[in-house]
Amino acid sequence: MDTDPVIAIEMYGRMMIALEKLESCREFAALIPEVRTNMAYALPNARTPGEVLAIDGRITVVKGMPRAAGRPCFGASGHMARLVLGIREAYPEIRTAIDFSNPPGFAPWLEEYCRQNGWAFAVLDRQAEPEVSRDAEGSSMSWRAREVIRAAGNRAPKVFCDAGAFGKEPVSVIVGTEPISTADELCGIARAFARRGT
Amino acid sequence: MDTDPVIAIEMYGRMMIALEKLESCREFAALIPEVRTNMAYALPNARTPGEVLAIDGRITVVKGMPRAAGRPCFGASGHMARLVLGIREAYPEIRTAIDFSNPPGFAPWLEEYCRQNGWAFAVLDRQAEPEVSRDAEGSSMSWRAREVIRAAGNRAPKVFCDAGAFGKEPVSVIVGTEPISTADELCGIARAFARRGT
Amino acid sequence: MDTDPVIAIEMYGRMMIALEKLESCREFAALIPEVRTNMAYALPNARTPGEVLAIDGRITVVKGMPRAAGRPCFGASGHMARLVLGIREAYPEIRTAIDFSNPPGFAPWLEEYCRQNGWAFAVLDRQAEPEVSRDAEGSSMSWRAREVIRAAGNRAPKVFCDAGAFGKEPVSVIVGTEPISTADELCGIARAFARRGT
Amino acid sequence: MDTDPVIAIEMYGRMMIALEKLESCREFAALIPEVRTNMAYALPNARTPGEVLAIDGRITVVKGMPRAAGRPCFGASGHMARLVLGIREAYPEIRTAIDFSNPPGFAPWLEEYCRQNGWAFAVLDRQAEPEVSRDAEGSSMSWRAREVIRAAGNRAPKVFCDAGAFGKEPVSVIVGTEPISTADELCGIARAFARRGT
Repeated sequence: MDTDPVIAIEMYGRMMIALEKLESCREFAALIPEVRTNMAYALPNARTPGEVLAIDGRITVVKGMPRAAGRPCFGASGHMARLVLGIREAYPEIRTAIDFSNPPGFAPWLEEYCRQNGWAFAVLDRQAEPEVSRDAEGSSMSWRAREVIRAAGNRAPKVFCDAGAFGKEPVSVIVGTEPISTADELCGIARAFARRGT
Repeated sequence: MDTDPVIAIEMYGRMMIALEKLESCREFAALIPEVRTNMAYALPNARTPGEVLAIDGRITVVKGMPRAAGRPCFGASGHMARLVLGIREAYPEIRTAIDFSNPPGFAPWLEEYCRQNGWAFAVLDRQAEPEVSRDAEGSSMSWRAREVIRAAGNRAPKVFCDAGAFGKEPVSVIVGTEPISTADELCGIARAFARRGT
Repeated sequence: MDTDPVIAIEMYGRMMIALEKLESCREFAALIPEVRTNMAYALPNARTPGEVLAIDGRITVVKGMPRAAGRPCFGASGHMARLVLGIREAYPEIRTAIDFSNPPGFAPWLEEYCRQNGWAFAVLDRQAEPEVSRDAEGSSMSWRAREVIRAAGNRAPKVFCDAGAFGKEPVSVIVGTEPISTADELCGIARAFARRGT
Repeated sequence: MDTDPVIAIEMYGRMMIALEKLESCREFAALIPEVRTNMAYALPNARTPGEVLAIDGRITVVKGMPRAAGRPCFGASGHMARLVLGIREAYPEIRTAIDFSNPPGFAPWLEEYCRQNGWAFAVLDRQAEPEVSRDAEGSSMSWRAREVIRAAGNRAPKVFCDAGAFGKEPVSVIVGTEPISTADELCGIARAFARRGT
């Protein structure tokens, strides 16, 4: 890797500390989707998924707790990497994204949670995606990134969810400038959702 | 667990040997779906997912190879466990099921592969699923099991795939009486698919 | 492996269930030696370490709990495998051995625990080992096996410890006919030792 | 942890990159001692093992390759942490130490390798350790650190080995200012030792 070593050191360090936070959060296990969670963290000038750090094998649930299947490595994510790359075209300060589940009834609760936190929230309609875009994986993600930005009112989105599509599980996504604070925010969502209505 | 210890010993032993086969098969990594693979193995008189052995955290891909996230344990699967339980209502000799991906263009190839091996093959139309069934996870799986049997021509199915549904990734499934031979059969599929057209 | 598949299935099954017991026993973490624990389980007619199942990478301590570094596989142990092979020359019913630590002051407590359980206990003096034996790893283990049997009063030993030697950590060993009951016995030792004097 | 977050990020990042280097080096597997390897990395002002980052569960060998049993965390090492703390009393720029094996005949080869690389090499005689020191783990490590410095000719040592002691496996140690370059140096030793005499 020709990555600047100082930047790589900081990125691996932030990913490990963020991962410890996610793995320690029991409530987050309930928000890991069927497709499992990944956490992507792009190099400052990333153009391709190979320049995005992510968790090899994604984050799954073992003995009831979130658990990374492998280690952070560059190129370990396709979907989430392309989503970050797409969002960064408009908002280059966004370098991290983490996906989580979107179970029935979750989106309205999440919207209210975001409103209380002053976070831009958007719902993405993947059914509106043009057929041609859906066919090519790369294009689809660019479309999703553009659509999220549009749905957020041409602001940098903070949290968004989609309702799924044919063959696609509905998921939610949170983005940020780096993974530690983003993992903290996601654990906050998970804990609040676990306590809802109590 | 009040399981007969002799049966539990045999089941854990067969799962570990089957898992070694899957984890050693590089070509199988290409057939692990977004929702990850699970391998379910039901007790002879299983009625609930708690009586079905499966891989905790499912089987994911790490460094390009299939890798179990956790260990086999009873109750580690919901979906695949219910599918086995549903099929066993009609064909109690079926105790194992493993899911794998169903990428575009895969089903016709898989049908021909099954024909050559003399295996009952079926395509499941999850869109035909009644609304009421889809709502309740348990009922849905019973519907899938019944529909697979019907689609296989009222025989025990060996391999089947579905085209997905709204919010649901299309997957393929192979079933068998125990996991070692079923894992061997699945690795055979993966190797043949990797060699196709060459 | 040309091993009889029925025997291999039973052996993997017993190892996994035994491993679950050790990994669930917090008190056992305190008895894992610097050299880490291994659990060996020999084929009925084993002659070489390749015919002995053991834990690849041994059992270490992670987050305060015992944790296997890898999976059971044949040939994963040298020391413990040879020890079992040596003991089996005289007592072929012995197929399993697990090592654990021997901290200062432990041996007298362990001897009393064994007396209460009616188990043959022995202390092995590795300093008495002939120089020629210590040089060759294989011979040394045969000497240890013979010496343990002699020290146990020409009975099958159940538990023994040594005081270490130059360059060798002192360890304790428990043996048995199969790993599940042996792991149960070792967890019993660990729990009783944790409660001692309270 | 009240650690400065910027320092913690850099330390976790360096540990992960160093760990990837060790885990990718097949030749290093042959130099992992019975007590397993640990890599310690002290905070700039560390006074206690809780302020030293190390690998939880140490680094063992799985499928013939070095593999960390757990993750880097503060407080995961006792021995290696105290050794670094002891050396830092005289040479505060030293923050990292990694131990590896010292098989028969290795020390003279290692001494020559160090001479060629211009590294201070020392042999530690643990038999010379005063009885009172050996009893208390903490004091022993301070004694070892002081003795290594003395044996290196009152310079900062780079590599040293000991011949073991009663109950103690002989080991070698390499130290450095941070783990990435130290892991590189250790992999260089492992590769050169694997090629020796060829």
